[in-house]
Amino acid sequence: MIVCLGLNPALDITYRIDRMVRGEAQRVRSVYARAGGKATNVANVVTQLDGQAHLVCALGGPAGEIFARQLAETPIAMTGVESARPTRRTVTIVEDDGTATALNEDGEEWAAADWPLMRAAFDDLLLRSEPGVVVLTGSVPPGTPATAYADCVAAAHDRGFTTIVDCSGPHLIAAIEAGAHVVKPNRHELLATVGAEGMEGVRRLREQAPQMTVVASDGPAGLLCDGPAGRWRAVPSRPLIGNPTGAGDALVAALALGQWRGTPWPDRLTHAIGASGAAVLNPVAGQVDPSLVRELAGQARCETIG
Amino acid sequence: MIVCLGLNPALDITYRIDRMVRGEAQRVRSVYARAGGKATNVANVVTQLDGQAHLVCALGGPAGEIFARQLAETPIAMTGVESARPTRRTVTIVEDDGTATALNEDGEEWAAADWPLMRAAFDDLLLRSEPGVVVLTGSVPPGTPATAYADCVAAAHDRGFTTIVDCSGPHLIAAIEAGAHVVKPNRHELLATVGAEGMEGVRRLREQAPQMTVVASDGPAGLLCDGPAGRWRAVPSRPLIGNPTGAGDALVAALALGQWRGTPWPDRLTHAIGASGAAVLNPVAGQVDPSLVRELAGQARCETIG
Repeated sequence: MIVCLGLNPALDITYRIDRMVRGEAQRVRSVYARAGGKATNVANVVTQLDGQAHLVCALGGPAGEIFARQLAETPIAMTGVESARPTRRTVTIVEDDGTATALNEDGEEWAAADWPLMRAAFDDLLLRSEPGVVVLTGSVPPGTPATAYADCVAAAHDRGFTTIVDCSGPHLIAAIEAGAHVVKPNRHELLATVGAEGMEGVRRLREQAPQMTVVASDGPAGLLCDGPAGRWRAVPSRPLIGNPTGAGDALVAALALGQWRGTPWPDRLTHAIGASGAAVLNPVAGQVDPSLVRELAGQARCETIG
Repeated sequence: MIVCLGLNPALDITYRIDRMVRGEAQRVRSVYARAGGKATNVANVVTQLDGQAHLVCALGGPAGEIFARQLAETPIAMTGVESARPTRRTVTIVEDDGTATALNEDGEEWAAADWPLMRAAFDDLLLRSEPGVVVLTGSVPPGTPATAYADCVAAAHDRGFTTIVDCSGPHLIAAIEAGAHVVKPNRHELLATVGAEGMEGVRRLREQAPQMTVVASDGPAGLLCDGPAGRWRAVPSRPLIGNPTGAGDALVAALALGQWRGTPWPDRLTHAIGASGAAVLNPVAGQVDPSLVRELAGQARCETIG
C-alpha cells in the first residue's frame, strides 16, 4: 500500500470562461470542483496505475465536506482527520484559448489540536498496515512544525515503510537528515537547496545522504537519478505540450509504485516519464490515461551515466 | 418593512493578490467570504440606514450554509428556503493597485420544487406582515418562469405592498406590465429596453405605464426621475472614484426607504445619490457609512425638469 500524507489538501475549483479581462466582471461558463492538492493527485494516479493508495489528510469546513464526498467516489482509501481549520480552495481559470491562471489559497493556520491528531492518525495507519511506501508531498499549512515531514520519515522507517519526499526548503533538508529514501526536487528546488542544477546539483544533494536516491525532474528534459543502485538519465521521446500542473505528482506516483513493486530503476524511471507525460496531456491535474502511460514509457529512453 | 427577494443569491468571495498574471499560478494573500447578491446588498444597506429588511432567498449546498451563517450575524431578518440547487459563488480578485476582476457563476437550474417553494415563502411572508415595500432585484436562475418577477409584483400589490424593480430584459418588461411602482434601469438597460438613453429613454419607458416612476441611473452623471409626482434630475456634487459594484443596490435601498417613509421625491433622490456615492467609496459591495450617506446626500443637487 502507498500511504499519501496530505497536510494541506485543497478543493480544486476550475472555472471556464471565454476570455479573462483584468478589471472587468465576467461570466463563469462552467464550474468543476474536485478533491485536489499534491498528495491527492499522487493517490489518484497510484490507483489509476493499479496501485492501492491510502490518503491521510485533515479536512474542515464546507470545502472539506465537498472534498470528502468527491474522494468517496474514487477507489482511494481515506483517513480524514476532522479539523477546525477550513480546507483551502484553489481556483483555476481556464480561458477558451487554453490559458490557465491559478489562484491558490494558502489556507489558515492549523487549529491547536490538528497536527497531533494528524500524527496520531498517520502513526495509527502505519501500525495497522503491512509495510509499504509513504509519500510525503506538498505544501504545509502555516503553523506546521519545521520537523513535521522529518518526524513522519522517522516514524515510517520505524514501521518498515520506505519514504518518498517531494517538498522544498527546510522541510526537504530536515526530511533528508531524517533519512528519506527518495527525494524528487525539480530544477528550481535543486538550485535553491544546493546552489547547482543538473547532475552537479544532484551529486551535491546526494552527498548529504549517500543512502538516498535523488530523482531530479527538469520538465521536458526528463529525469536525472543518482542513488546507491546507480546513476541514470531518462528522457521522453518528444516534448509534450499541455497542462504541467500535476505532472510532478504523476511522476512521484510512478516512483512510489516502482518502489512498492521493486521495479528495476531504469524501468521505474521510464514509467515515471510516461506517467508525467500522460499527466501533461490530461487537462485535469491528477489524472492519467494508463494506456498512454505505457505508450510514453515505452518510447522513453534511459541511459546509464558514468 | 422592506422585503427583498433574492432569487439568485451568491456567496461573494474576495481574493486579495499582489498582481494577476494571466497564465500563471499565484498566491492568494487573503480570502474573505460574505453573503452577497443584489437583494442581499439592498437588505444590507437598508439596515445600515436604519430600516428593517427581510430577505427571502433560496439557499443550498455548502455555499448556502456559509451564506446563512454570515447573514445570521447581520440585523437582516431572513427566510431561507432550502433548495437542492447549490448557492452560487462569485470570486472577485482584487490586486494591490485596486484592479478588481470578478468571476460570476451563473448558478445551476432550479430544482423542480424550488420556484413554487420560493413563491409560497414570499406569499406567506407578505400575508404575515404589515404592508410595506417589496424590492425585486438581481438575476434569476436558469429555469425561472418568465413571469416570476411579474407574478411577485402582482402578489405584492394584492397584499398592499408597493414594489421597486431593478432588473432587465423580459423580466423588466413583464414587471412593468404587472404594474411595478418604481423601476430603476441603468443607461445600458434603458437603451436595451426602449432604444433610447437619457430623458428620452426615461419618457419612452414611462409611456408604457403612466402610474410608474422611472428612476434611471447614469453612473457619475446622477439620476433622472420621471413619475406621477414630477420630473427631476439629481446630480452628485463631484464624481467619486472607487468600487462601483453595489452602488446601484445602495441606490435601490435608499429608494425603498424613501418609499417606506413617504419621503418627498427630491429628498429621496438626493438620499439615493448619497447612498450610491457612499457605496462607491466603500471597498465592500453592500456596505455604506451612514454619516457619509448623509454628507453626500446633503451635497447633491436635485432640480425639477420642465
